[in-house]
Amino acid sequence: MQNFDFYNPTRIVFGQDRLGELDKLIPASAKVLVLYGGGSVKRFGTLEKVISNLGDREVIEFGGIEPNPQFETLMKAVKVVKENDIDFLLAVGGGSVMDGTKFIALAASADKDHHTLLFHGFNPVPVEKAVPLGCIATLPATGSEMNAFSVVTYNEQKYPITSPLVYPQFSVLDPDFTFSLPKEQVANGVADAFVHVIEQYLTQPVGAKVQDRFSEGILKTLIEDGPITYQSDDLAARKNFMWSATSALNGIIGVGVPQDWSTHMIGHELTAMFGIAHGRTLAIVLPSLLRARKAQKHDKLVQFAERVWDITDGTEDEKINQAIDKTEAFFNSLDIVTALSHYGIDDEGIDTVVANMEKMGLTQLSETGDLTLDIVKEILLAAK
Amino acid sequence: MQNFDFYNPTRIVFGQDRLGELDKLIPASAKVLVLYGGGSVKRFGTLEKVISNLGDREVIEFGGIEPNPQFETLMKAVKVVKENDIDFLLAVGGGSVMDGTKFIALAASADKDHHTLLFHGFNPVPVEKAVPLGCIATLPATGSEMNAFSVVTYNEQKYPITSPLVYPQFSVLDPDFTFSLPKEQVANGVADAFVHVIEQYLTQPVGAKVQDRFSEGILKTLIEDGPITYQSDDLAARKNFMWSATSALNGIIGVGVPQDWSTHMIGHELTAMFGIAHGRTLAIVLPSLLRARKAQKHDKLVQFAERVWDITDGTEDEKINQAIDKTEAFFNSLDIVTALSHYGIDDEGIDTVVANMEKMGLTQLSETGDLTLDIVKEILLAAK
Repeated sequence: MQNFDFYNPTRIVFGQDRLGELDKLIPASAKVLVLYGGGSVKRFGTLEKVISNLGDREVIEFGGIEPNPQFETLMKAVKVVKENDIDFLLAVGGGSVMDGTKFIALAASADKDHHTLLFHGFNPVPVEKAVPLGCIATLPATGSEMNAFSVVTYNEQKYPITSPLVYPQFSVLDPDFTFSLPKEQVANGVADAFVHVIEQYLTQPVGAKVQDRFSEGILKTLIEDGPITYQSDDLAARKNFMWSATSALNGIIGVGVPQDWSTHMIGHELTAMFGIAHGRTLAIVLPSLLRARKAQKHDKLVQFAERVWDITDGTEDEKINQAIDKTEAFFNSLDIVTALSHYGIDDEGIDTVVANMEKMGLTQLSETGDLTLDIVKEILLAAK
Repeated sequence: MQNFDFYNPTRIVFGQDRLGELDKLIPASAKVLVLYGGGSVKRFGTLEKVISNLGDREVIEFGGIEPNPQFETLMKAVKVVKENDIDFLLAVGGGSVMDGTKFIALAASADKDHHTLLFHGFNPVPVEKAVPLGCIATLPATGSEMNAFSVVTYNEQKYPITSPLVYPQFSVLDPDFTFSLPKEQVANGVADAFVHVIEQYLTQPVGAKVQDRFSEGILKTLIEDGPITYQSDDLAARKNFMWSATSALNGIIGVGVPQDWSTHMIGHELTAMFGIAHGRTLAIVLPSLLRARKAQKHDKLVQFAERVWDITDGTEDEKINQAIDKTEAFFNSLDIVTALSHYGIDDEGIDTVVANMEKMGLTQLSETGDLTLDIVKEILLAAK
């Protein structure tokens, strides 16, 4: 196991009928900006319930944060924050709303050149303070409700940002709010959470037994309860899916182990260039990436096959092949097509993706930096 | 899965050679009280290393916090804190030192009747502030380094206390500091961590799949790497043992599930009355308790047998019996004798334990309150 730091001060409020507690979670004197997306939280009544639980607090609404939140949209919210002396941000929505709110929280404390906040990658954004924020998470997927990460789109590129200042002070996770989700978004969320675990798990082995077993536990739960949530209104499965998605990216499985976020890096390009939903891009890239990286990931792939997919027969190579095939079939079972051609992307499109990654400096992916752009191209061609 | 809250703001600094970071973890202007136990941290040089990393800060030492820390000892430290305007407490040691430091942090903000702070059980101690504290954890066992709990002995009784104010601000977990531990304490720590997991896991099933699998992952790791740590200086195993012990009681496996702390409640009496080390009392009580509670814990015991001990053959009852026998054999493999007679406790002693629990109002144990004192007596008689 490698040395590590772990810190996560977000308070999780999990379960049905918890909105009444907003009153004690947000300072009584706070002037609150409630942020949301395309309006489904309005249509399904979630927003109204949230606001009615804010009591006498002054509340301003900001809707219209789009999927893959755009810098320009978020800057409009920053203006609202500044003009109205907002002192608490309440995100009501999925990953995009929560991610967007985190950027707003940071950008509101900067006076100019807000776009430069996006250029620090996984180093903390160099600002001294942020507006405190909380989340009502309506889509289990990104884990944004319990981490300090955000992804913002600027000039058609996706930029990851992070700062310890944007851990949500609290996140309410009420499975009831997910029943109004389109089925497709549930599928995307399952794929997203699954790949979050994989990127922290399928790397070089370092003997971190607790973390490995936690990862395997989340993967098995997603394999069991993801499809049930996709196909039905089963509440017990939905709760497990929600907590799996949060646990997948709150840091606890990633401590002390190498991490390989290649699938996300490649997937982000597919979203930025072709508008494919984030979870879907990961499901397209992952099986192909694992096939291309069998040698580098050999030991962990065997462990994945045996412990997650319960594959006991065959040689190690056969187990690995089966495990990757089962992973792809799992995504397909959620009606996620894992072929680029389905999304109209041909060889030329692949070349553009690779060229763009080069422009962005994304030329050495994986935990050792050995996943070069030739290999990215090979992975994408194999995913046609 | 039940509704739950999760909150744990402790920063973990895990790994070798991390003491240099104390300088940024503790405010530069802090006046620090360094607390420790019987002096082994002094003999083995840990204390000196810690203090040398505190730089120019004013440092006062307070040693002599005993195993099962005594109210009277801790009140002496409270006096030191008040007289010297201490504004940071740094615990260097195992569970007793960390638990004691938490009580000191709370008691220092009370003016009188400090003993009444002990009488709130698992409700937060009603004080408004506490002195901030950090830990250098030298004994993986209690999990105190990453939770808000403490157990203090007063008038020969053990009192649990808790307050969100006593989450350590940070805990340094350096496996190197555990190499000087007596073997017996390693064994006790393995037993303690194992039973912490069991008390959150072997209860009524509520379909909390992530939590169950996290628990099983920690148990399997303790079964594998506990004995290796007991018998050798293997660093990789020791790291996994350390992180298992912390993960066992930082709240993450206990969210949304029923908890049954009966083994601890009974074990605390055995420590308070007969001075048996905490971990050992748990190892004595648990196998006997599980045998007496097969019916109530049936479903989870089968799951425990199959998933933790990999028992696949036999009827469900046979699996359960095997799993309990293997659990007891596991403790015995660490040279922990699991018979009360070994510790000189006879029928009369057992009667005294039961009478004392009655006096303390501990008459309805388990998650449903159905474990009465008759059953406690039966459990202890079977553990003779």
